[in-house]
Amino acid sequence: MKLTILKNKLNEGVKVVERISQKSLTLPILQNTLFTAEKNFLRLSSTNLESSIRWQGLAKVEKEGQICIPTKFLSSLIGSLPDKPIELEVKNLSLNLRCENFNTKIKGLSPEDFPIIPQPKEGKSVIINNADLCRALTQIINIPSPSNTRPEISGVYLSFHPDSIKMVATDSFRLAEKKIFLKTGLPKEYSLILPQTAAKEIIGVFGDREGDIRVYLSPNQVLFEYAADKVAQPRIEFTSRLVEGEYPDYQEIVPKEYHTETQVKKKDFLNQVKAASLFSGKINEVKISFNTKEGRVNIASQSPDLGEYDSFFKGKVKGQDVAISFNHRFLVEGISEINTDEVIFNLTNEDGPAALKPTGKSDYLYIIMPIKPS
Amino acid sequence: MKLTILKNKLNEGVKVVERISQKSLTLPILQNTLFTAEKNFLRLSSTNLESSIRWQGLAKVEKEGQICIPTKFLSSLIGSLPDKPIELEVKNLSLNLRCENFNTKIKGLSPEDFPIIPQPKEGKSVIINNADLCRALTQIINIPSPSNTRPEISGVYLSFHPDSIKMVATDSFRLAEKKIFLKTGLPKEYSLILPQTAAKEIIGVFGDREGDIRVYLSPNQVLFEYAADKVAQPRIEFTSRLVEGEYPDYQEIVPKEYHTETQVKKKDFLNQVKAASLFSGKINEVKISFNTKEGRVNIASQSPDLGEYDSFFKGKVKGQDVAISFNHRFLVEGISEINTDEVIFNLTNEDGPAALKPTGKSDYLYIIMPIKPS
Repeated sequence: MKLTILKNKLNEGVKVVERISQKSLTLPILQNTLFTAEKNFLRLSSTNLESSIRWQGLAKVEKEGQICIPTKFLSSLIGSLPDKPIELEVKNLSLNLRCENFNTKIKGLSPEDFPIIPQPKEGKSVIINNADLCRALTQIINIPSPSNTRPEISGVYLSFHPDSIKMVATDSFRLAEKKIFLKTGLPKEYSLILPQTAAKEIIGVFGDREGDIRVYLSPNQVLFEYAADKVAQPRIEFTSRLVEGEYPDYQEIVPKEYHTETQVKKKDFLNQVKAASLFSGKINEVKISFNTKEGRVNIASQSPDLGEYDSFFKGKVKGQDVAISFNHRFLVEGISEINTDEVIFNLTNEDGPAALKPTGKSDYLYIIMPIKPS
Repeated sequence: MKLTILKNKLNEGVKVVERISQKSLTLPILQNTLFTAEKNFLRLSSTNLESSIRWQGLAKVEKEGQICIPTKFLSSLIGSLPDKPIELEVKNLSLNLRCENFNTKIKGLSPEDFPIIPQPKEGKSVIINNADLCRALTQIINIPSPSNTRPEISGVYLSFHPDSIKMVATDSFRLAEKKIFLKTGLPKEYSLILPQTAAKEIIGVFGDREGDIRVYLSPNQVLFEYAADKVAQPRIEFTSRLVEGEYPDYQEIVPKEYHTETQVKKKDFLNQVKAASLFSGKINEVKISFNTKEGRVNIASQSPDLGEYDSFFKGKVKGQDVAISFNHRFLVEGISEINTDEVIFNLTNEDGPAALKPTGKSDYLYIIMPIKPS
């Protein structure tokens, strides 16, 4: 292998594949990046066996070939190099890297030891705006919690429809559903469960990029492909295995009707719950009372050690008066993800699910279970 | 105690005293801030027994008094409150805090249990520009390392002169001396050793403020007083105990003459040492060779596992050719603190001390010991 590539380009590629090239003591090859020089391209690949990334950028290739190089090491080294062309040449399982008057020889590993990265591009595919995808994932990504007994809810559920994609996450105390509207979706409904870590990496890898992502769907894998319009721009593929199992029919827990319907200022609600949270005890309980006659929401909490909190704010409250307790953390996380000035908070009763929504178009729904009255 | 104070002002005060109000399991009172309402002022005090902070701001005091309140708790609570006046009232060892429609009651502790904070203002004093002081401390603060056998070098040595203050730090592998020039210093030389943690807190507390600091010197304590010019601005006092013992006569290790004198671009030097550091082994060794005839500096390192580094850059080199090894970490830290485009690096011989300096006015000197040739 022998090629020349601009420092900035190589740096970008290494930063991308570095995200999942991890410290694996049982399989040290996973700490490496596979370099492949082919035609006019340099391809960098990394994998943690669950997910894989392939980055491909234009390079002046004199001789095709492959080698595995320690990723973190390479990343640190490139950071110290000047913004000049970098010459890479493989000799005897070492990579000679030259850049201006920098001259180094890096010991590598055999490319044959690197795991094969699947490229499942045969099945159906959908195109999504990249910013929409990453924004949606960001809104729900922190909800699932690792579960050995119920692995299927440890991931993010994606269901593809003719006009939209729904993304769902739950930890059984609360559930969030985020909808992305599409011009062209899938004619027939299709669903999958993406591992939470893969969803986080997708945000990290694609989050700042403009343009579209093509998602390839296959039975056990999903592939996200990004290719900037211009031919000189790099192509990035992110592949992940899927979580096995059946996602629960979450529509069942979405209430069909509400007994108390409220609309309040997001800022008021959030600040009051945050302040009240400081006085809550071990079970994180804050108590909310809705008063329809006065259009008033009261928030209270107390702790034998710290003191008491008892405050209120004004809002629109319709239906029945109700006093209900929530875990403040789940409430704060739900309210925070709403991007409108006001939030809709609808309740069934003191021990039934409640729903948080933005005002206006309904692309986000957050169902939260109360703390049962003792 | 009963008073009213603006939220932003109280918030500023709590953020200042919070810095040293720490989680102390043996003495829980240290997790608290002492509130003192007196005349037209609210005073907040915190201490970790080594250092203490007193913040004082204008408030509308209706009734004088004192109480101790958990600091972190208070700090979190204030963050959630609106930018409105806050009313504070002590009743039965609880603090009633009201702000717009926020209403809370915080359990406190008796002010009598709070340690007495010394205010050593009787001795000599010197006025220093605050930005100069903090910038100087920042340049040397990370050098000392905690030492049980030699506590005197675990701190920062301050020596006061008629026209300047010198600040010195060492860990016995390298030593930095930073000079601040003063219009009016102390007529007679005076010195003290400031604990490293106290020096860090001084940067944290005063770093962003404009104006001057008055430093009060007394045998076992030092007090840094900041008072913004306008009467409405808060006053801050930081007191620290001093490190006991005699600081070594560091002038002895500063070379009187050099056999090799060099001047190189800071950026070249820094990037090359950083790149070479990646290939260095366990003792962090990078080897530097100075060639007077070619005006060339060569940097090399190697590791049996990772590979080899061998590069050069151009610079002014006078005197004798020399090849010398350094710990790259100490070299990088020294070069990084120099703020001129070029650095002066003067050497005695391959096992003697070397000196790093900025070009131009000489207010910073960094002495570094080489790794002995094996």
